[in-house]
Amino acid sequence: MLYLVGLGLGDAADITVKGLEAVRRSSRVYLEAYTSVLTVGKEALEEFYGRELVLADRDLVEQEADEILKDADVTDVAFLVVGDPFGATTHSDLVLRAVNAGIPYRVIHNASIMNAVGCCGLQLYNFGETVSIVFWTETWRPESFYDKIRKNRAAGMHTLCLLDIKMKEQSIENMMRGKKIYEPPRFLTVSQAADQLLQVVQRRREEGEEPGLTEDTVCVGVARLGADDQLIRTATLRQLASCDLGAPLHSLIVTGQLHPLEVDMLRLTAEPNALDHLHMTDSSTYTS
Amino acid sequence: MLYLVGLGLGDAADITVKGLEAVRRSSRVYLEAYTSVLTVGKEALEEFYGRELVLADRDLVEQEADEILKDADVTDVAFLVVGDPFGATTHSDLVLRAVNAGIPYRVIHNASIMNAVGCCGLQLYNFGETVSIVFWTETWRPESFYDKIRKNRAAGMHTLCLLDIKMKEQSIENMMRGKKIYEPPRFLTVSQAADQLLQVVQRRREEGEEPGLTEDTVCVGVARLGADDQLIRTATLRQLASCDLGAPLHSLIVTGQLHPLEVDMLRLTAEPNALDHLHMTDSSTYTS
Repeated sequence: MLYLVGLGLGDAADITVKGLEAVRRSSRVYLEAYTSVLTVGKEALEEFYGRELVLADRDLVEQEADEILKDADVTDVAFLVVGDPFGATTHSDLVLRAVNAGIPYRVIHNASIMNAVGCCGLQLYNFGETVSIVFWTETWRPESFYDKIRKNRAAGMHTLCLLDIKMKEQSIENMMRGKKIYEPPRFLTVSQAADQLLQVVQRRREEGEEPGLTEDTVCVGVARLGADDQLIRTATLRQLASCDLGAPLHSLIVTGQLHPLEVDMLRLTAEPNALDHLHMTDSSTYTS
Repeated sequence: MLYLVGLGLGDAADITVKGLEAVRRSSRVYLEAYTSVLTVGKEALEEFYGRELVLADRDLVEQEADEILKDADVTDVAFLVVGDPFGATTHSDLVLRAVNAGIPYRVIHNASIMNAVGCCGLQLYNFGETVSIVFWTETWRPESFYDKIRKNRAAGMHTLCLLDIKMKEQSIENMMRGKKIYEPPRFLTVSQAADQLLQVVQRRREEGEEPGLTEDTVCVGVARLGADDQLIRTATLRQLASCDLGAPLHSLIVTGQLHPLEVDMLRLTAEPNALDHLHMTDSSTYTS
């Protein structure tokens, strides 16, 4: 049996009892290590689970999946994923390979950023399409995320923005020389993402486009969700651009229409004056 | 400390290790019992957790929240919620009361239908607004869910439809007599929901409205997600209307635009001919 086990968010104790049983029962345990990270490292997980973990980077999962699936028809293999196995990143490819090889699989679910983000007080019901915001470079500054946020906002929906993670990046120099030397991991912060958004807002305004959001749009920055030191900060887009939320992972939410109960919840984590620019859209909702 | 603990989906072993520790540490443990149910009952949970549970119905949570929060500033109290505490139903109200009373709270997340539904193979990224489909009566046949599904589909998005749960319903007769006698719980099934949707499709067509979906639209029925006997069935809306997916809880997904990898995953659970009516919208997506 191939077990796809969600580890949840936070630390080692966020695994479910059912997930832990599957890990302890398995003859090989892989830890997917390229789409997300926990606040604790591999060693802490190994100690808690009582099992040795094999780090599975993108190359292993995408190019050497057969190694992961080897003998999984006669023995138990666990594939651990931060969050849920079908959360922000899906592992459909591994599932399809297993099915094609006649290997039964079982998913053991857990929280992922896609649902746990509800703890900031915004209703999950009212989220539209999820977007990814990538690191801009000198020459590559994609803005497609902005148009999706605009579209969600126009429909009154909130937008969860997942922020870029660079886990095993090669410098162009090392890539050209064929050297498998990797740069230290990088994680887009809420402040960087807010800054990129502000730049798009500014550029579009100069082009005369009707602004879908402004410097005063209410956003929520989320850091290390589910961990002991998680931080949630409700602020205007401008305020978030100069907010330091500390260590990764970060996520950003751009609000749409807000119901009064959502506003009450946001007040619990709001910066001074963050909610000053809200105005009523009808008798029951606010927007910024 | 007030702990809001997600139980996940399925059975008692879907609680996280961290959640189980909080339950065992608490002096009182409430089980929220009106917005969702597990496939196992209160007794099975009590045995697994080693703690007595107090069933918290809507009256207790909404009108007697002070009882739940009593002494939670000096002792630990756990409030257990099927799925995640901020999943389909949020418990913002209880959190706000706790904060106002100076009681610290902590959320222990878990999987909810809002993210676990990704295991059917549809990308969570591509879901639009979530809708609720309620039991129709002779005189009350709301159609607002249909318009939201149309809107999501027009934007290429999938729609998760949460299906009605009637946990402590009074008959009109008993309500008028002031008798607190409740009807047995009722759960809207995938087949009933699909039938209601088909009736709206038919009625709107007769009114000459451009159909947002048809009898051949690809949908996914999900039953008892996360449980040992979970069932996922990909079928046309018409096929689903005569599908028996067994015991509750059920949910229904109406697909939007489908990527090839999503189609590959849907094939794993598809009824014969269910995907026959898909057509390419551009080089990379399909719709029905």
